[in-house]
Formats: sequence, structure tokens, C-alpha cells
Amino acid sequence: MDKIDINSDLGESFGAYRLGMDEKVLEHVSSVNIACGWHAGDPMVMKKTVDTAIKLGVAIGAHPGLPDLMGFGRREMAITPEEAKAYVIYQVGALKAFVEAAGGRLQHVKPHGALYNMAAKDLKLSRGIAEAVKAVDSDLVLVGLANSYLVKAAEEIGLKAAREVFADRAYGKDGNLVSRKEPGAMIEDQDLAIKRVVRMIKEGKVEAITGEEISIWGNTICIHGDNEKALGFVKKIRKALKEENIDIAPMNNRFLKSGSRGGMTNGQGD
Amino acid sequence: MDKIDINSDLGESFGAYRLGMDEKVLEHVSSVNIACGWHAGDPMVMKKTVDTAIKLGVAIGAHPGLPDLMGFGRREMAITPEEAKAYVIYQVGALKAFVEAAGGRLQHVKPHGALYNMAAKDLKLSRGIAEAVKAVDSDLVLVGLANSYLVKAAEEIGLKAAREVFADRAYGKDGNLVSRKEPGAMIEDQDLAIKRVVRMIKEGKVEAITGEEISIWGNTICIHGDNEKALGFVKKIRKALKEENIDIAPMNNRFLKSGSRGGMTNGQGD
Amino acid sequence: MDKIDINSDLGESFGAYRLGMDEKVLEHVSSVNIACGWHAGDPMVMKKTVDTAIKLGVAIGAHPGLPDLMGFGRREMAITPEEAKAYVIYQVGALKAFVEAAGGRLQHVKPHGALYNMAAKDLKLSRGIAEAVKAVDSDLVLVGLANSYLVKAAEEIGLKAAREVFADRAYGKDGNLVSRKEPGAMIEDQDLAIKRVVRMIKEGKVEAITGEEISIWGNTICIHGDNEKALGFVKKIRKALKEENIDIAPMNNRFLKSGSRGGMTNGQGD
Amino acid sequence: MDKIDINSDLGESFGAYRLGMDEKVLEHVSSVNIACGWHAGDPMVMKKTVDTAIKLGVAIGAHPGLPDLMGFGRREMAITPEEAKAYVIYQVGALKAFVEAAGGRLQHVKPHGALYNMAAKDLKLSRGIAEAVKAVDSDLVLVGLANSYLVKAAEEIGLKAAREVFADRAYGKDGNLVSRKEPGAMIEDQDLAIKRVVRMIKEGKVEAITGEEISIWGNTICIHGDNEKALGFVKKIRKALKEENIDIAPMNNRFLKSGSRGGMTNGQGD
Repeated sequence: MDKIDINSDLGESFGAYRLGMDEKVLEHVSSVNIACGWHAGDPMVMKKTVDTAIKLGVAIGAHPGLPDLMGFGRREMAITPEEAKAYVIYQVGALKAFVEAAGGRLQHVKPHGALYNMAAKDLKLSRGIAEAVKAVDSDLVLVGLANSYLVKAAEEIGLKAAREVFADRAYGKDGNLVSRKEPGAMIEDQDLAIKRVVRMIKEGKVEAITGEEISIWGNTICIHGDNEKALGFVKKIRKALKEENIDIAPMNNRFLKSGSRGGMTNGQGD
Repeated sequence: MDKIDINSDLGESFGAYRLGMDEKVLEHVSSVNIACGWHAGDPMVMKKTVDTAIKLGVAIGAHPGLPDLMGFGRREMAITPEEAKAYVIYQVGALKAFVEAAGGRLQHVKPHGALYNMAAKDLKLSRGIAEAVKAVDSDLVLVGLANSYLVKAAEEIGLKAAREVFADRAYGKDGNLVSRKEPGAMIEDQDLAIKRVVRMIKEGKVEAITGEEISIWGNTICIHGDNEKALGFVKKIRKALKEENIDIAPMNNRFLKSGSRGGMTNGQGD
Repeated sequence: MDKIDINSDLGESFGAYRLGMDEKVLEHVSSVNIACGWHAGDPMVMKKTVDTAIKLGVAIGAHPGLPDLMGFGRREMAITPEEAKAYVIYQVGALKAFVEAAGGRLQHVKPHGALYNMAAKDLKLSRGIAEAVKAVDSDLVLVGLANSYLVKAAEEIGLKAAREVFADRAYGKDGNLVSRKEPGAMIEDQDLAIKRVVRMIKEGKVEAITGEEISIWGNTICIHGDNEKALGFVKKIRKALKEENIDIAPMNNRFLKSGSRGGMTNGQGD
Repeated sequence: MDKIDINSDLGESFGAYRLGMDEKVLEHVSSVNIACGWHAGDPMVMKKTVDTAIKLGVAIGAHPGLPDLMGFGRREMAITPEEAKAYVIYQVGALKAFVEAAGGRLQHVKPHGALYNMAAKDLKLSRGIAEAVKAVDSDLVLVGLANSYLVKAAEEIGLKAAREVFADRAYGKDGNLVSRKEPGAMIEDQDLAIKRVVRMIKEGKVEAITGEEISIWGNTICIHGDNEKALGFVKKIRKALKEENIDIAPMNNRFLKSGSRGGMTNGQGD
């Protein structure tokens, strides 16, 4: 039986500011990426989000970002690999403490926004991040864009890597995401988006924006959780996956079985 | 043989700003309290300070503070016990990750500045802090002002508490520190300061500013590390303690032996 | 004809975080207090809010707060009068630049949250704030709680002071606001709230929570703008004031006429 | 008689952190660039630095930077021109308020660090900055790297631009600074550095790192102020300029005379 993880970025509220439909979304995902107080989130929000995730049995990951609350971590910053490493250790350590304080266990780390995007195309930066994750806990899974340097850097040092695919984004023929600034970057048709996901899971293939068929294996799909439409899509994709006999399970399960497609060892990530 | 720990607050640099003579001071203390990025310190500084402490065999503690970098965590803020708890979990978790990434083990937690002072006189706030420390790792030692609520809150929930005494500060007859704003609050005479410390360790007594003899047991002495005079004092007190056959050892050693004076179970903290 | 100003705290969004129904509320108030980037707001939000206020002809004030974005400036902090002065100059200067860049003129300054509350009961802190406002522009109006030290400090140095009253809050017999933590602190009945406001404006009197009739003169009423119910109340109170022949006009108008009740020179503030 | 301005970046302390030899350097420069609280500086530091500069008769400029205190504003961040504009209005407004509160008048604006460097090579970003400066006060001088887009953007909209040259940096044959990462980027020989400066002022020429003679006109020389060696250099260059009959005067003087070399209208900036 095929398997896939569904993840969402939550815990992004800060102080008096509320963001996201966290509690509703947590009912539909298998993994959650929780902001660590730099680009979003604060300790009170982290605690509450961790507690809710544990109560609902959702696997927890840290979602470290750039030190740019005003820009929500979405603006590239010229940090060094050493800084990236230190920043990730800091944020993952903070989130991990909340998880362990609540009796849970941290499953994964997924960099946020510009840190994720910069790492995807910068091997040195990715190495800094991967080393940080390994240094905190060598059993953590590092989530990176499928076909990106983040996945490569994780695997280089023996860290489990989960390949992330996007239901609502177009891919270039080189396997990278088409920039949101380009026409056609977003897959607006929900039914088409779901068909693409099912094909990625079952066949490891997707049609690029240029028409070619490209190889892509994903272990986890990213789902947005900030509006009603996003919530409707999560329900719809869950239903479709079930009908296709695709099991929804936390990404870590992927690494517990040998020979599973899209796993660590098949090397399709690069 | 009597024992005492000598601790110092280090790792207080931030970005381009240098503060403290960290490397020199680390050669003379048995425990170090490392700032966690809120009132001082940043991830690069935390990493470097942790690595140096481990190399020199100095026991490491987290030094969490209020979210007030501009005020260096020295200004009281009306935070709730729940906020204190979350803020301490966050900061201790972050520092602990650096310690474990470097192959070490976190020994203790000592709140900084206004958080330390507010907790000393507010039992609810102290309970929030103590619960945070226990939640992160129930084997950590919580350092509080001798005779303060922070020590009491730690012991209430079975957490190891270290009583901190100050060589250069006067005490009131109630066992509290005399405010720095009062005349006579600082013990300027280094020889007198050392005599007082030796007596606190050997006899559990000190002369209050009002002339009475009061009871005070300490497990750890706080030493400043931000100027040459402070460094000279550390060397002097080390020499004096040695001559008095007082062993200088990390505070955690205190809890490894039963029946030791000033330990967890004697209840002199309140 | 009686006059009153209606003010609201807006421009409190920050980065990706949206807060308040700014554009709707701006259609119904005569003055707006715009956050200055410390407890809320950021330069992009400040610019947009200033531009909208100018377009709609709403008089603009700076709304400086404590350096505590995580606590939304609502937590008391032990800052000195000198710090308060410098913090207010900084924030008022920043907001004033946006107003002047858009061709407008800053009308007033109203401290936010804990800074406002601390100043109300601390004359030295109030003096620091009043000196800051005067130093930036001696023609600015300083808004403080009616009967508070902030009004007194402004008048001491010849600064125009506007007395703020609250439609939805109970008053103690000493003229101070009843703490929100006390029962009965909030006036939930909108019709009663409006009757109280009309009486404050026409008679300079209000019934304290203890039943006594107390003197209170206000130049400006604070209206919330963060939900639909608040917006409904603004419309209702505007209608009621019109029926009572009370003119709604920016607070600065108050100071353009001699002999007006509740003005600068009658000294009822203390 | 030839004229030149000498400027230095000061007011870079923050909270408990001290940086720079501000008071000593202020005795030797004609203009000072004061940090505005984002990459360095805080309101207390801004006030003190402004007051000292006014007392010593040094012309004051705002030194706005990126929102990156941890990186001291030295790391490039992908901000938009609109963000740059809002960030500069905010910071210049804040600093201007301190200058006017002290009875002075703001002379100029010089972006800091990565903001300065990004603007030098990005015309759109430079336009955002220039528009901000003009919006705050159309009489301000905008300081940019000689031959850079910042100078061009200022002149496009009729803003006075001062061309900055560096005594201790090598230039490429295209007139840009050689990156500090390249060998030979720094002119270590103080006598050579001074000779180069004198020639830039008198002849409008300098030898590029590649050996060619290039055109360069400067209105202001940047001098560092963070160590004893820098201070020694300031004294040395002042003496040399005097011997060469070059007058040291604030950059704004440059714009008060018609026909002066290196002024606004000669267009050599690009």
C-alpha cells in the first residue's frame, strides 16, 4: 500500500496576533511544522500548538526560520552556513523542549520560507542546516523540497530526508518549483492538483509546466491552513487518497520499512 | 571537606557587540551561566561559549532572561507565571541543544537579572520557572538566591535547588540582599568579602547590614566577569578558599552526596 | 454647542499579521492613534494608515508604546522617566515623518497600553512623556486619562492636554478607571454607556461604581475598532451624540476656542 | 580653496553594549552619521550622540539600516523598494526628532552597511531611499558611494547628493569599490591612503587596482571610529589636508556655493 504524509505549517500566531486555523487543520494532517519564534510563533503559542498536536496524535516538527519577524521569514538574507547551523540548533532546541515537556518526541525539521528556498539551491547552506539537525538529534528527519540540495545535504551525512511535494504548484522540467511570479505557477484547479499528487505518489511522475514528464518522488505533501478554502482542499485530498488506497501516515513511518518507494535510499532526490 | 561552586554569567555578547572576558573567566569558575538570546547572547555566541566551557571542563547552565535586549533583562516586566514558564522552557531548550550538540550535558538553570529578582520575591512566578526547568529535564539544578522563593518553589516540586550567595553584596536581617540603591549595599573591601564567604561556607552565617548575625547557606557564589578587577577577585577568592580547605566544584556535585550542608533537603532556604 | 472627539487605536497590524478593521473604523472617528512599531505596527502599516487617515480627513496622533511586541505593550515594564522620554521622542518622530511625508500635520500623542496606565499613576514618568512631546513639537496635544498624572504633567509645562474618557468602563469614586479584573469594570449595556458619555459631555459628571456622582470632563472618547460589535457601537454613539446636538470634531478644535468646557485651562484634570 | 567633509558612523552602542569611541571621534569630523535603532543604536544612545554632536558643532545625519540588529545591518536582505522607502522614512523621522528636540537641524542621510551596498548597485532600491529622504525633508543631502546608483537616484529627483569616497579602500577600473574579500581591497599604508585622498579632492582622479587612472569626485570621506588606530588616522589626514590647503567642512556647505567641483550639478557621479 502506498503511503504519504500530509504536513502543514502552523503555530504562526505571535503575541496578540492570531494567524491560521490551527485546531481545525490539525485534525486533518499527519505531521505539523511548528514555528519557533523567529519568523513567527512565540513560546506561549509553541506550547499550545505542541500540546494540541500531541493530544490529536499529529507528529511534530520544528519549523525554524530567518530572524525576520517583520518579513515573516520570507525575505532572503545573506546568512552564512555557520549562522544557519547555529540558528537551526537554537530554534529546534527550543521547540524540542516544548515537545519533550509535553511527553512527546520531535519527529522532523522543516526550514521555513526564505531559509527553505535559499537552502534548496545552496548546498553549503543546506549542509549547515543538515549538520544542525544531526547535532541536535541524529534520529530527526529533515524535510526539503524534492530534488533539492537540502535533501542531498541530509543524505550526505546519513540523516533521514523527507522529500516534500506541493499539490498546488507547477514544476519546471528540471524538477524545481516554478516561481510564484511566473504565470501558471499555481495549480488553481483542485481536481487537477489532486490527480497530480496521486500520480506523484503512485508513479513518481508529474507533468512539468513545459509539458515534459519528469520524475518526482515525495514523502510528504504540504497543505496550507490559513483559510476555509485551504481547509476544504485538505478534506478533499484526504478523501481522494483514501479512494486510491494511499495511506496517510507521518513521514517517519516511511523510514521504518525497507524498500518503500520514495524512501531515503532510492536517491531520486537529486 | 567543605565544598563550594563558583559561577559566572557569560556568553553575553550579541552580534557585533562584545561583552565580558569570557575566555579568561572560564579558566577560574566551576560553573557558567550562559545567556540564551533574549536579554543577551545570540546563537553564534551561545555555540562558542558552550564549546569553550566544555573544552575547559566547566559545568554549564542556562541563563534565561526577560525579552528585553535593550534593557539587558534588568528591567522588571509584568509577565505571568505561565509566560515565565514558557519563556524558560524556550530558552533552556535552545541552550540545551547547543550543549548536547557539543557532546555535553546541561547542569543547571539560573534566571537572569529582573527575572531572578522578581522570582525571589514572587512564589507564583518562581513556581512557573521551577515547573519549566523540571519539564525540560527533572535532573537539572535550579539556582536561586539563598533564602528566596525560587529555592522554595524548586524544592516544593522535588527539583534540586542551589542557593546562591554573593561575595560583594550586603544582606538585610531578613536574609535578602540589600538593594544596590541603598548605602552599604556593596562590599567594596575584597578581603572582607572573602572572609564573609568563607564564614558562609563553614558556619552558614553572615553579619547583616544591621549588625545581627543571620543564617545563610550557599551552594554557589556568583562572580562577575566583565573587567580586570573582577578577574583579580576571582583569583584571590580561589586562593583563599584553597587555603581554607574548601573545595571548588560544580554545584551538581553537592547533590551527589547525602547529608551535605546546604544541600537540597535541609530546608534552610526559607 | 458641545463638542467631543472620538478616537480609536489603529495601525496595529505587523508584517504578515492583520489586526483591526482600520478602514471601516476610520470612517467614523475624528481622531486616530497610530501605533509606531514598538508594541504594534511597522513602517509599511504606518504609511498605509497615515495615508488613509489623511484621505478621510481624520486627525492623526502617534500612539507610542513599550518595547514589547510580544506583549503588545500591555505589560508594565520598569523603565525610567529618561527612557520614557527617549522612547516617545523616537516613536513620535517616526510617525510624524510619515504624516509630513504625506502632506499632513500630526495632531496629538497618546501613549499606549501599559505606558498609558503607568503614566496615569506616576507623575515622574508622565513628565518624561510630556517633555518628549513638547520637545518634538510644542503644538502637539497630549492625550491622557481624565483625572490622571499625564494630564497634569502636560499642563505643568504648558502643553495642550486632552482628557480621555471611556464609554465602556466603570469609574471609581476617585475618578480612576476600575481595573478590568474587578467585577462591573466593563459597561456592557451599550445604551447605558451612551447615556453616561452624553452626561459626561453635557454635565461633566458620571456615576462611580460605588454610587457616588463624580466630576469628570472629557475631550475625547476612546472607541475600539477590532470587531463588528465595536463598529456597531461607534455608529450608535455617533447617532446619539448628533441627536443630543453634540458636535464630533478632532480634539485639537477644542483648543482653538476660549472658554470651552473641558479645555486646557479649567484645570479639572486633577 | 578646495573643500572636503569628513564623516564617521557613530551612535552604534545599544543598551548595555558599548561600541565606538564616539566622543573622541566627534572632535575630529565635520559630519556624523548616527544609527537609528534598527541595525544599531537605541533612543538613549541616539539622544546622547545627537546632544554631543550639537555641542561640538558637528553636522548630523541619519544612518538608517536594515532591520537586523543581530547582523549589525551588514547582511543583505531582499527588501522591496517600497519597504526601503518606509524603513528610511521611519528611521530618519526618529533621528530627526532627536535633532530638532535638541534645537538642531538634520543635514543628511547615509544608508548603512548592506542597505548602502545594495542601493549602490540597484537603481530601484536607490529610488525608494531617495524618495524617502525627499519626502521627509527635501533639503536633506543623501550620501551615497561616488559613482553609484544612490547618487544617481538622488539627482534624478532633485535631491542634493554627496559622493562618498574611502581613504582606505581600493577602487576597480569601473569606479566601484573592490570587495573586501579580494586581495588588495584595503589600503593599509596610511601615507598612501592620504595621498590618494588629496588627489581625489584636487584632481578628481585615483589609480584603480588594475593600474588605470579613473575619475572620481568625492564630497565626503568616511573615517572609522572604533579603535585607536582609526583615531590616529583621522588626526593624520586632518593635518595633511590642512597642509594641502583643503578646508574641512560639513558636506552641506558644498551645496551653498555655485560651481564648486564635485558638487551636485557636475554629473560626474555616474
